[in-house]
Amino acid sequence: MFTITTFGESHGAAYGCVIDGCPPGLALTEADLQGDLDRRKPGQSRHVTQRREDDVVRILSGTLEGVTTGTPIGLLIENTDQKSKDYSDIKDLFRPGHADYTYQQKYGIRDYRGGGRASARETAMRVAAAGIAKKYLREKHAIVIRGYLAQLGPIAVSLKDWSAVSQNDFFCPDPDKVAELEDYMNALRKSGDSIGARINVVAEGVPPGWGEPVFDRLDADIAKAMMSINAVKGVEIGAGFASIEQKGTEHRDEMMPEGFLSNNAGGVLGGISSGQEVVVSLALKATSSIHLSGKTVDIDGKPAEVRTKGRHDPCVGIRATPIAEAMLALVLMDHCLRHRAQCGDVQSQTPIIPGKRNS
Amino acid sequence: MFTITTFGESHGAAYGCVIDGCPPGLALTEADLQGDLDRRKPGQSRHVTQRREDDVVRILSGTLEGVTTGTPIGLLIENTDQKSKDYSDIKDLFRPGHADYTYQQKYGIRDYRGGGRASARETAMRVAAAGIAKKYLREKHAIVIRGYLAQLGPIAVSLKDWSAVSQNDFFCPDPDKVAELEDYMNALRKSGDSIGARINVVAEGVPPGWGEPVFDRLDADIAKAMMSINAVKGVEIGAGFASIEQKGTEHRDEMMPEGFLSNNAGGVLGGISSGQEVVVSLALKATSSIHLSGKTVDIDGKPAEVRTKGRHDPCVGIRATPIAEAMLALVLMDHCLRHRAQCGDVQSQTPIIPGKRNS
Amino acid sequence: MFTITTFGESHGAAYGCVIDGCPPGLALTEADLQGDLDRRKPGQSRHVTQRREDDVVRILSGTLEGVTTGTPIGLLIENTDQKSKDYSDIKDLFRPGHADYTYQQKYGIRDYRGGGRASARETAMRVAAAGIAKKYLREKHAIVIRGYLAQLGPIAVSLKDWSAVSQNDFFCPDPDKVAELEDYMNALRKSGDSIGARINVVAEGVPPGWGEPVFDRLDADIAKAMMSINAVKGVEIGAGFASIEQKGTEHRDEMMPEGFLSNNAGGVLGGISSGQEVVVSLALKATSSIHLSGKTVDIDGKPAEVRTKGRHDPCVGIRATPIAEAMLALVLMDHCLRHRAQCGDVQSQTPIIPGKRNS
Amino acid sequence: MFTITTFGESHGAAYGCVIDGCPPGLALTEADLQGDLDRRKPGQSRHVTQRREDDVVRILSGTLEGVTTGTPIGLLIENTDQKSKDYSDIKDLFRPGHADYTYQQKYGIRDYRGGGRASARETAMRVAAAGIAKKYLREKHAIVIRGYLAQLGPIAVSLKDWSAVSQNDFFCPDPDKVAELEDYMNALRKSGDSIGARINVVAEGVPPGWGEPVFDRLDADIAKAMMSINAVKGVEIGAGFASIEQKGTEHRDEMMPEGFLSNNAGGVLGGISSGQEVVVSLALKATSSIHLSGKTVDIDGKPAEVRTKGRHDPCVGIRATPIAEAMLALVLMDHCLRHRAQCGDVQSQTPIIPGKRNS
Repeated sequence: MFTITTFGESHGAAYGCVIDGCPPGLALTEADLQGDLDRRKPGQSRHVTQRREDDVVRILSGTLEGVTTGTPIGLLIENTDQKSKDYSDIKDLFRPGHADYTYQQKYGIRDYRGGGRASARETAMRVAAAGIAKKYLREKHAIVIRGYLAQLGPIAVSLKDWSAVSQNDFFCPDPDKVAELEDYMNALRKSGDSIGARINVVAEGVPPGWGEPVFDRLDADIAKAMMSINAVKGVEIGAGFASIEQKGTEHRDEMMPEGFLSNNAGGVLGGISSGQEVVVSLALKATSSIHLSGKTVDIDGKPAEVRTKGRHDPCVGIRATPIAEAMLALVLMDHCLRHRAQCGDVQSQTPIIPGKRNS
Repeated sequence: MFTITTFGESHGAAYGCVIDGCPPGLALTEADLQGDLDRRKPGQSRHVTQRREDDVVRILSGTLEGVTTGTPIGLLIENTDQKSKDYSDIKDLFRPGHADYTYQQKYGIRDYRGGGRASARETAMRVAAAGIAKKYLREKHAIVIRGYLAQLGPIAVSLKDWSAVSQNDFFCPDPDKVAELEDYMNALRKSGDSIGARINVVAEGVPPGWGEPVFDRLDADIAKAMMSINAVKGVEIGAGFASIEQKGTEHRDEMMPEGFLSNNAGGVLGGISSGQEVVVSLALKATSSIHLSGKTVDIDGKPAEVRTKGRHDPCVGIRATPIAEAMLALVLMDHCLRHRAQCGDVQSQTPIIPGKRNS
Repeated sequence: MFTITTFGESHGAAYGCVIDGCPPGLALTEADLQGDLDRRKPGQSRHVTQRREDDVVRILSGTLEGVTTGTPIGLLIENTDQKSKDYSDIKDLFRPGHADYTYQQKYGIRDYRGGGRASARETAMRVAAAGIAKKYLREKHAIVIRGYLAQLGPIAVSLKDWSAVSQNDFFCPDPDKVAELEDYMNALRKSGDSIGARINVVAEGVPPGWGEPVFDRLDADIAKAMMSINAVKGVEIGAGFASIEQKGTEHRDEMMPEGFLSNNAGGVLGGISSGQEVVVSLALKATSSIHLSGKTVDIDGKPAEVRTKGRHDPCVGIRATPIAEAMLALVLMDHCLRHRAQCGDVQSQTPIIPGKRNS
Repeated sequence: MFTITTFGESHGAAYGCVIDGCPPGLALTEADLQGDLDRRKPGQSRHVTQRREDDVVRILSGTLEGVTTGTPIGLLIENTDQKSKDYSDIKDLFRPGHADYTYQQKYGIRDYRGGGRASARETAMRVAAAGIAKKYLREKHAIVIRGYLAQLGPIAVSLKDWSAVSQNDFFCPDPDKVAELEDYMNALRKSGDSIGARINVVAEGVPPGWGEPVFDRLDADIAKAMMSINAVKGVEIGAGFASIEQKGTEHRDEMMPEGFLSNNAGGVLGGISSGQEVVVSLALKATSSIHLSGKTVDIDGKPAEVRTKGRHDPCVGIRATPIAEAMLALVLMDHCLRHRAQCGDVQSQTPIIPGKRNS
């Protein structure tokens, strides 16, 4: 119901996005979208890529005097800092761990300039579009969607303090861990290598009843959305893989008139939101764009060595926090509207028990 | 492109399914579908629920003299062993960990008889439908899709021998572990509790080029499909959560003219198949249908105790193996057709390097 | 949002349908659906085909104790009067005007028994499914959807009296024309030929605001729905083809506080319902299943003569009235839910002017 | 499969479009799209609106060095000649025959500047997008899609000569009728009124087998596409409404080894292309943007008079020819890819009989 359609490549003229299904009457200007774009933007600290992307988003349609009209919202971000020359020497080589090889095999042609469509820069459009969803969910349903870095390589981080997340370069929710992260990243950058990360995202205030029972389950759509983020290799809802070793008596979240006693379900039961916090965790691989040489083949299948030059994130996971928040917002917004469509006659009922907070 | 639409509740008259998009000219009879249905069927051993479901599937349309005609294929499984009386005393109670509460909140009404639409019995239709996909993929593309139990509670199992999987009650690929699994399950059943599991699924022979770059990535669609299986709480592709601690030099799968040197990607790069094995792992929670009493509330929010009677799987993960295979088959079939639609002009090209086998 | 998926062939085991998106809480039993099925059913008078189709529909899922639960509704109609032998001699011939040739070319195989999937018998499932939509629209929105025969071959019929429609074999709204229609059909049947017809359908009570502006316009979706009925070759909304010769001053429906002064628009402006009656007209060709021999080719392209035996409608348009009503109901139901999804926040506003009735 | 998503309003910053599913490897530059845009463009003659829209399209993504890559193609047309002041005095009035009233009722807000999203200017994006489809269909399948004015108010025009169409301001296929059309339009413009029109569109070379049997029939999708064009009130395929009075022996197109003997079907049988010319006819109403005053109400339901100033087409039908061609191209392209998806295994077979040309 709330759909986004994007276009654009890292070294093309612009990225664009069309948002269909946005409810009318929502106050909306570029300023509402720019904040998360800036959080995602490269070049913010020495721990992320030093590419300069201005990422200035323009709203081209769908609003009148700062209010949404219900018609499609067109967004545009023009590319300003493309250095296509960086990529000319890998034109006929497939970088290991990249989509170079699979694009070539699929299409018989590929845009070799900086990853083309496979570049994570595409997520800027999703972050911009999700800014609309976030605002609607916050204003109409008091839903708050927040994420944080939960692990960087070997360093696990606990959710100590939500307010800390915005006060360091890592989206780290534990101020005492920031120095350790800095040291790790400095050493990593020096080595020329890269590292994976875990990001957690939480939505508070989701009312019970969102999601479809079988195919378009809320958790299934979240899994798809998260796995569609570049570099993500795993997704968990609630207890996730820890569920394997939990007994039924331990995993099932018992209920009291005051609320649930635990949240192993991660806020989703039978594909439908329970009113508890929706809790998602994702694993991101290390970027394959590293300066250390690796074995590969060229377009004729001949052996070769490749070394990625250019400017890249040593840990793409760091900047993934606002992207993961964005994807969760897009899924929730879609299910908000879907639920209203089918269950508008009954949806006003109050929850039988409150959705207990984890925090 | 290859879509399935299902209906049915555990205690209704029948389950049904419509398959749209099946290519014409495929030899197909009920016998092609019954095999996997029988693998999924309850009552096969004492380690799974003792419900008797005959699960006899009928093909109602879409074939002529045993060959698909290209028109929608209708499947039907009639319910024969419904004991609705088992559920009457939980009509107004919400079983913890079940979808009872969320269905009631979403729809203002729920089918309290055995889980209704939320019952895992619905997956029988997906397994039946996937039988068509499996057969097509095998005959036209020599793709083989197989799964196994990789962990049951605390007991991890390695892939020793594919042929062992069909020779025990657990889909266990290591014959030496079967006795340990038996003992664990016997003790568990005695305790009245249940346990989680991990299932791995592998598709061999997928050609490079299937999957869409951004939203409908092959891995994203697999994540959604797997998370739509009842009780699944986590999904991994390739190295999955282990990617977090891998460095870029370790994770990236280097390439040689003879093939890839590793398969951390799990056969998907940039959302598109690479020609390597597609490797998926999923975590299933313990069933919440256990005989041990738990705290809950009733439909008025009053505190209550609930104890599930009836016949249930102490480990739903065991029977999930054919279901996970089915979901992977459905996703691959869909992307097979999608790829042909867009890239039919170029798809005949041979792979530049062979997709190296893991096994 | 309200989607139907059907399967079945005229000489297969059964027709089936899955309805997704039906709101929960609607009282629904088979009796609600059987009435329109009986109106559509062959064998009701000597002017339509003498095939006996019992067309008894069963609801297999989606209701509990006679109330919809919000989960998919499965419908099934078993085929009971198939005479496959009637068709054996046309197995390798293409009947002119039928889909025989196009199915063979598309799929490389075709179900030659009575049209297979191309048989108008498939519309029984749409009529059954639409019974749900009709009931919901009537109960929640006081929408009434009715159709009538407006022309049969050379005989045009005016809407004199809605109540007359159900009192003759032709859905004719002018009692004084019935005898003329009888005579025409008797002569036609004797000649062995068939004839075309025009059906009009009207929906009263549709509130303003349903429909999407550009692609999924209400009128566009109606056009598609009507053209998807077998034998339909033309669709008009409101003034339709008469608009060509109307000047702007004549066509535009002026507005007064008491309502619109005319309804050339047919209740749709800019793709969105205006609150006026939605008025649709469709042209149906004469059935090509006639007893008079015609030129054709066989499967090898060799010239041949073909004569359809079996039992067929000399005017398929007669029975198309309930089908056209059904298609309009399905489109309106879908847009009812879509509108609620996007515009649920503002949809309660009252119309600025009343939707004037034509009648 | 070949989907277009558009955004933009007549007085916003820009119109945009995303094309998903375009096959890779197609040579494509802006020049391929500009031709049809120029044919549709206003200001070309004194018979159409004198608004100056430069309608210069830019390709923002999806090509590399002038060849499609298979990734989404983004198109942008910036608005340059918006005179928003023209519309300030109708801000709170509903122009009869326009979408003003229905947008206000649907969304509770409307962009009153020149029709906003309801403006026919949106079709520029569809024409641009269809340029890609037209080129692909022409190059890969030798399909030619052409349209012409078949009637303007009371003046019917016959298809005398395809080459005449591009040699007058009316897309008139009969050079002898041009003077009469000129005179009619001069008188009409002087009167301040507007008039309807009929446009015919023909696709030659469509192979047999495109289209889906029941819902997404080729003719149903064409009907939807045509009815989604602004001002269209009726659609016919083949014999269309003339079918009503045709007998079965007359309507059915008999077949010979040399081809069909007639084309009443308009190239579609059972929803699937037959290999004959696809023949479509559409009725366009007179524009409601006229200088003659009319009765209406204001936003509070109070009676009012309204007179549209600004620059408008006295006959919007004239410029609809390239738009109708565009919509037909988009539908055919989509079904081309859909057919390949499902029937790729059998699609290479040659037609059993040639698709006879009408002309």
